[in-house]
Amino acid sequence: MQNIKVFDDCVHELSRLPGVGRKTAVRLALHILKIKQDQAYKLSEAIKKLKDNIKFCKECGAISENEVCPVCSDENRKKDVICIVEEAKDVFFIENTGRYFGLYHVLGGKISPLDGIGPGDLSFDKLTKRVHNLNVKEVIIATNPDADGETTASYIGKILQNVPDLKITKLASGIPIGSHLEYADEITVLRALENRVGLI
Amino acid sequence: MQNIKVFDDCVHELSRLPGVGRKTAVRLALHILKIKQDQAYKLSEAIKKLKDNIKFCKECGAISENEVCPVCSDENRKKDVICIVEEAKDVFFIENTGRYFGLYHVLGGKISPLDGIGPGDLSFDKLTKRVHNLNVKEVIIATNPDADGETTASYIGKILQNVPDLKITKLASGIPIGSHLEYADEITVLRALENRVGLI
Repeated sequence: MQNIKVFDDCVHELSRLPGVGRKTAVRLALHILKIKQDQAYKLSEAIKKLKDNIKFCKECGAISENEVCPVCSDENRKKDVICIVEEAKDVFFIENTGRYFGLYHVLGGKISPLDGIGPGDLSFDKLTKRVHNLNVKEVIIATNPDADGETTASYIGKILQNVPDLKITKLASGIPIGSHLEYADEITVLRALENRVGLI
Repeated sequence: MQNIKVFDDCVHELSRLPGVGRKTAVRLALHILKIKQDQAYKLSEAIKKLKDNIKFCKECGAISENEVCPVCSDENRKKDVICIVEEAKDVFFIENTGRYFGLYHVLGGKISPLDGIGPGDLSFDKLTKRVHNLNVKEVIIATNPDADGETTASYIGKILQNVPDLKITKLASGIPIGSHLEYADEITVLRALENRVGLI
């Protein structure tokens, strides 16, 4: 049976997606063959439209339909508070709380020596400039609390420590709501203990 | 931050793919935003082309650019041997051996009471017709050796047992080449023992 080029091409393109190996790509391609034509067209179109219409905000790096994202162009957001996140998707998770009214800054990753990602690969220079230009009063570091995320948080602390009147905070670590002490690891419990808050 | 429709649409379409949840879909969408434009276009195009140009062979159910697949339309293939597989992708795995010269029959799945898939959902009627029309001498059952695959194999044996002069065989189960006895489960070792082959 000769190879079917169109099929192989699609498998090849799908397998370039992160986390999609050749076997998964074959499974996805066969799935696309089985679904209705308009559903397959919708998927194809959605990918093209996404690429054509969405960019990264030139101010903060969040995803946006315009040059500047809705948060950065919103007059009502506090311009002197910046929440620093690793990736554009993290902006959604903070926004979903509905209680944050400052700006964002997307680093584009985290410092990871093992993956060859150093400070020069992330948007720290731009962060420092924004902190100065916007006369920022507080940066909230919202990197993930894993090893690389903590390193990145420390690095941010270091480069911003000399900015006068700047409060530098970090998201609290502790027992997740709805969970139990017995399911948390020792370091999480230790952090929860160290960062205990007054009840009244 | 208002929702960005184009982004949400793409996440929605991606999350309809099997094994892709919402979080994975967001990750894929952000990946598509980061890659070069022509690579994103290639992916979009490949999906559309796949849907436009590939169909399932009307004879055997394998994937094909034409109404009838290259195997079924190949004069040199043996028409009196049919290898029965669960899914279209399984055809590739048998073809890759380079040593099978008969036809195929794709069932489109396996009997799975728990998933609500009964004999009526698979192409058994067509199989019986092909076995008769092509005057088939041997069917090789190549369903996967898990519970549902074995059930399906038994069912095929039952519906074809009265066809005169038809040899019904099944792929051998045993120790995979390059593996060791200690890594195989008892049933696999038992099958390997029961189906032992003469050395000379």
